[in-house]
Amino acid sequence: MAQFEIHPQLLADCHRLGKLAFCHALLNKNAVLPWFILVPQTEVADLLDLPDEQRIVAMREAAAIGQLIKRRFGYAKINFAAIGNVVPQLHLHVVGRAVDDPCWPAPVWGNLTESQEYPAQRIEQIREWLVRECSLKVES
Amino acid sequence: MAQFEIHPQLLADCHRLGKLAFCHALLNKNAVLPWFILVPQTEVADLLDLPDEQRIVAMREAAAIGQLIKRRFGYAKINFAAIGNVVPQLHLHVVGRAVDDPCWPAPVWGNLTESQEYPAQRIEQIREWLVRECSLKVES
Repeated sequence: MAQFEIHPQLLADCHRLGKLAFCHALLNKNAVLPWFILVPQTEVADLLDLPDEQRIVAMREAAAIGQLIKRRFGYAKINFAAIGNVVPQLHLHVVGRAVDDPCWPAPVWGNLTESQEYPAQRIEQIREWLVRECSLKVES
Repeated sequence: MAQFEIHPQLLADCHRLGKLAFCHALLNKNAVLPWFILVPQTEVADLLDLPDEQRIVAMREAAAIGQLIKRRFGYAKINFAAIGNVVPQLHLHVVGRAVDDPCWPAPVWGNLTESQEYPAQRIEQIREWLVRECSLKVES
């Protein structure tokens, strides 16, 4: 089997955090909202086409990230989506939302015009949370 | 337990098709794209907060609808999302997409400006597919 490669557009848009059991965990570089992207290690393009047992694991990993967003970032609401019209590789958006966030109530895709960078230290803190609370493995 | 009620905004926007084991199945009235909405019978607002066993059933029902969209409507791609910023009741979007559809590659939410109505006969045909292929129960 060929080596699994994360799509270059996702790598350009995101900080790579590490690997969960099934999904690679990325953090959108835009720090305005907690926006995680999970890339299941599969060639299947649509979430709903994954075999049942793989979809269960992917959704369980997304749920762990969603709960971390609520607990650690203090966001009350999670938007979840698998779209993939632009980047065809299967990837799952897990995004914290709040009624006072910069594009509420619009979906983030195409509507989030504000932008902000994560300080390096903040990325390390987030990675550490995922290691402790979501069993993230950091890739060397 | 109080009677479960589907949010009036969803009922206004959709044709009600019937009930799957866990989710109510609705069809967005805009016939430009095959756009189904599943409403799990729960008070939980976020997909990722559902108990594991309920999320598994909801996703299995969404997958059955996704496969029906590919098989019966001939769409190659499915967009899946649980957003709920406007209508707080948990509902799952399962939308057939194609490279020549009227808002490709933008997500449908807020971007689908074209509109078209389903003839009553077409709604009946779609309901019949769901009865046969997704175990839909038609409510009287």
